[in-house]
Amino acid sequence: MSPQGTGERSRLTIDYRNSMADAVGEQHGVSDAMLDEIAPEVAAQHERLVAEHEAGGQRWMDLPSDTGLVEEIEAFAAEARGRYRDFILVGIGGSSLGAIATVQALAHPYRNLLSDERRGGPRFFVLDNPDPEKVAATLATVDLPNTLVNVVTKSGQTAETMANFLAARQALEAAVGRERAREQIVATTDPKVGLLRALADEEGYRTFPVPPGVDGRMTVLSAVGMLPAALCGCDIGGLLAGARAMRASTESGDVRRNLAYLLAAISILADTRLGKSILVTMPYADALFGLSDWFRQLWAESLGKKLSLDNEVVFTGQTPIKALGAIDQHSQIQLYTEGPNDKLISLIGVDAYRAEVTIEEAPAGAPELDYLKGAELGQLLRREQHATAWALTEAQRPNFTMSVPTIDAAILGEFFYLYELQTVMGGALLNVNPFGQPGVEAGKNATYALMGRKGYEDLREELTATDGAGERHRWGGGRPPPPHPRE
Amino acid sequence: MSPQGTGERSRLTIDYRNSMADAVGEQHGVSDAMLDEIAPEVAAQHERLVAEHEAGGQRWMDLPSDTGLVEEIEAFAAEARGRYRDFILVGIGGSSLGAIATVQALAHPYRNLLSDERRGGPRFFVLDNPDPEKVAATLATVDLPNTLVNVVTKSGQTAETMANFLAARQALEAAVGRERAREQIVATTDPKVGLLRALADEEGYRTFPVPPGVDGRMTVLSAVGMLPAALCGCDIGGLLAGARAMRASTESGDVRRNLAYLLAAISILADTRLGKSILVTMPYADALFGLSDWFRQLWAESLGKKLSLDNEVVFTGQTPIKALGAIDQHSQIQLYTEGPNDKLISLIGVDAYRAEVTIEEAPAGAPELDYLKGAELGQLLRREQHATAWALTEAQRPNFTMSVPTIDAAILGEFFYLYELQTVMGGALLNVNPFGQPGVEAGKNATYALMGRKGYEDLREELTATDGAGERHRWGGGRPPPPHPRE
Repeated sequence: MSPQGTGERSRLTIDYRNSMADAVGEQHGVSDAMLDEIAPEVAAQHERLVAEHEAGGQRWMDLPSDTGLVEEIEAFAAEARGRYRDFILVGIGGSSLGAIATVQALAHPYRNLLSDERRGGPRFFVLDNPDPEKVAATLATVDLPNTLVNVVTKSGQTAETMANFLAARQALEAAVGRERAREQIVATTDPKVGLLRALADEEGYRTFPVPPGVDGRMTVLSAVGMLPAALCGCDIGGLLAGARAMRASTESGDVRRNLAYLLAAISILADTRLGKSILVTMPYADALFGLSDWFRQLWAESLGKKLSLDNEVVFTGQTPIKALGAIDQHSQIQLYTEGPNDKLISLIGVDAYRAEVTIEEAPAGAPELDYLKGAELGQLLRREQHATAWALTEAQRPNFTMSVPTIDAAILGEFFYLYELQTVMGGALLNVNPFGQPGVEAGKNATYALMGRKGYEDLREELTATDGAGERHRWGGGRPPPPHPRE
Repeated sequence: MSPQGTGERSRLTIDYRNSMADAVGEQHGVSDAMLDEIAPEVAAQHERLVAEHEAGGQRWMDLPSDTGLVEEIEAFAAEARGRYRDFILVGIGGSSLGAIATVQALAHPYRNLLSDERRGGPRFFVLDNPDPEKVAATLATVDLPNTLVNVVTKSGQTAETMANFLAARQALEAAVGRERAREQIVATTDPKVGLLRALADEEGYRTFPVPPGVDGRMTVLSAVGMLPAALCGCDIGGLLAGARAMRASTESGDVRRNLAYLLAAISILADTRLGKSILVTMPYADALFGLSDWFRQLWAESLGKKLSLDNEVVFTGQTPIKALGAIDQHSQIQLYTEGPNDKLISLIGVDAYRAEVTIEEAPAGAPELDYLKGAELGQLLRREQHATAWALTEAQRPNFTMSVPTIDAAILGEFFYLYELQTVMGGALLNVNPFGQPGVEAGKNATYALMGRKGYEDLREELTATDGAGERHRWGGGRPPPPHPRE
């Protein structure tokens, strides 16, 4: 456990003044009156969450306390780090985004290029997309006899994951034979039920649990996220300690004293009352871009819901966007500043980066560049972040800044827990169930039908019937349109 | 030049039926009547573009014809590919996104991990963000005595690029001395004026031109995008041939016969008439994710503009989102299907991926997975794409599908030219100037002010004055808020 991550106190701070009406005007900013108004609802929902947790629900809140699991994972990972040259994580969505975010934040940016000694553990590959180009390249690049495969799916039903796993497994078996291949596979899945559980039991794979009662997108602090992180040498004890620190800092039901609830309230008010239908998360650190992508799934799948209210159907949910400072100043800030005022923008700043690069000399004969002489890059990046916050505010674009002292395992754990609690409260304030993803069933079923899975014959017939749209909308250099959705 | 990319005929096709009212309803789909209505405006703007081009404007349209530049770049790159082990591109925004998109689409997914022989050219690194962690790691990872640095900025004013360049240059100089370092630097910049031009002339750097009269985000088909691509072994002749093929296929002023204008019309109508304020670009191929990111800059910076009309200020521009199929089915499709109906979604499909991976065996004892036996991953991915288009349409979410026969240099060139023309027409239909980015000046100036650049003293004073907001909105575990925007 990192010395900072003792669970004593969270270190993440926020300055949300620029999201308030005082800074960006009544039309675009949250007012104190709005916060007053929503405070009783936040307090009531907080009571409900606490009660549900005490009654055995909201199990994701308990993950940060499972230090026994950390020990078990560490024991496995310590041995595997010494044994394997390569490691493939097979998983998609909630089964890969957390691990990717963690390794990106905590490992060397070019970890796979380091020498075996410097790397301290296997190279890290992810098979998330069933893209044959990527999968074939991955299986041809790794050193199969010295590769560990971790397949992650709670149910074993996920088409992409099972397809990628079966492809990886047959490559392993071709390289080392069926017996040895079994020893190179570890499954993270439901402890009791499901297709992958049955397969793992039959084949004798080592397994780790996907925690029951926890939504897939909230499993980063379980074996789902922590096993890959530990294999890449990340401090998973520190991760949980940070999450515990944030949990301890977010026990109040007062919207102004609970950072997660405050962020939920500002975001939901900005969306529903001020037309900020887009939530941009823009860290000023390459290492935190994966965190932004992880949050993007959490916010979108949890709050993007269809509600039937009084004979009316309501579609909820802000659209989350992952951005990266300062890069997106050269891509998106023009739109964020002068385009539609429909965004709430979250900047993430780092007080002390883990490296310093100082420019010793500016070119002689170019006085315009003198300001760079003696400049340190982290200082430049922070000033760009401050300048962007100021320029957005001048243009009446609501924004807030989250700041961390540095990037380490505990801070990442704080972010994970904070965002999860913020999202659960966001769902409560929108009156939607933040768990589950009923809207993806239709597409999943259509895939099964097109793939010829048994039980989906009727849908297959519907999908492959002539659609009768004729020639009118066809396009392209003489080619017929793609068979769409026909096969 | 690739045999396919002979400039004869474009190969990209579109099926846009699912974006029409017939498929998703009058409230969400473009109608034939709307296309009829906008057709005269499209035709008139087309005439204007043609006239401007004939009068010496719209110079980006000429880039695909510059085969002389291809020869010059190829000659330089052929020699450099044999000489250097590593290559660092220093540039940001329009000076890096095109090269990244090209290398990602055309090179091996793990190119930097391949052996020197298999790679056929130097490893590829990009210094875009002035993130000290990334910059320090990059400069420590490359083999400096055998590294080529390509700095790309038209003016030489871009703070991030010049800072990163000066950091890279001092590392080179420390490794090989000042004289040899000069030979390892190539500058892509304005042929005549600017800070980098002056510096390059003084130091004797080899240079390539940023084409005059072309906006930075439309320079991918110039030396800006093509030099890095050629250094990584991409077929830049094929790239231009594909762009010429698309140019030849988009000469009509008829909105229904010009693919670029049709896409512009559908997007702008969906935005301004149907409330689709978000444009998602979701290729079903890892290799095309960079293209989606390149387009995201193009669409956002070109159309995200502030307009003063009749004493009213209007903020224009759809918000572009980069997504990736099938991964984002497990992250964003819940929101896209059941969240607010405020998106137009562009799927990109690939008829034949460059690799095949076939699953030979499904697990015995799990009949639910039988459908994967004999399945090929590309087939699975295409069916997921078709299923997603179908499910979106069922939920009345407008979408269209662009299809390509495979991914190669010529197809990428088609995309680049198509998207550029679409964007220029989009600006015309919105009545905004698609060139320039006036909205980023405030933030740039604030950065200069905070960095102490001469001439920005007044702004610095304004930014660092006490802002008087007091304690009210401070947050965090006892820490004062970040000095924001104060330093």
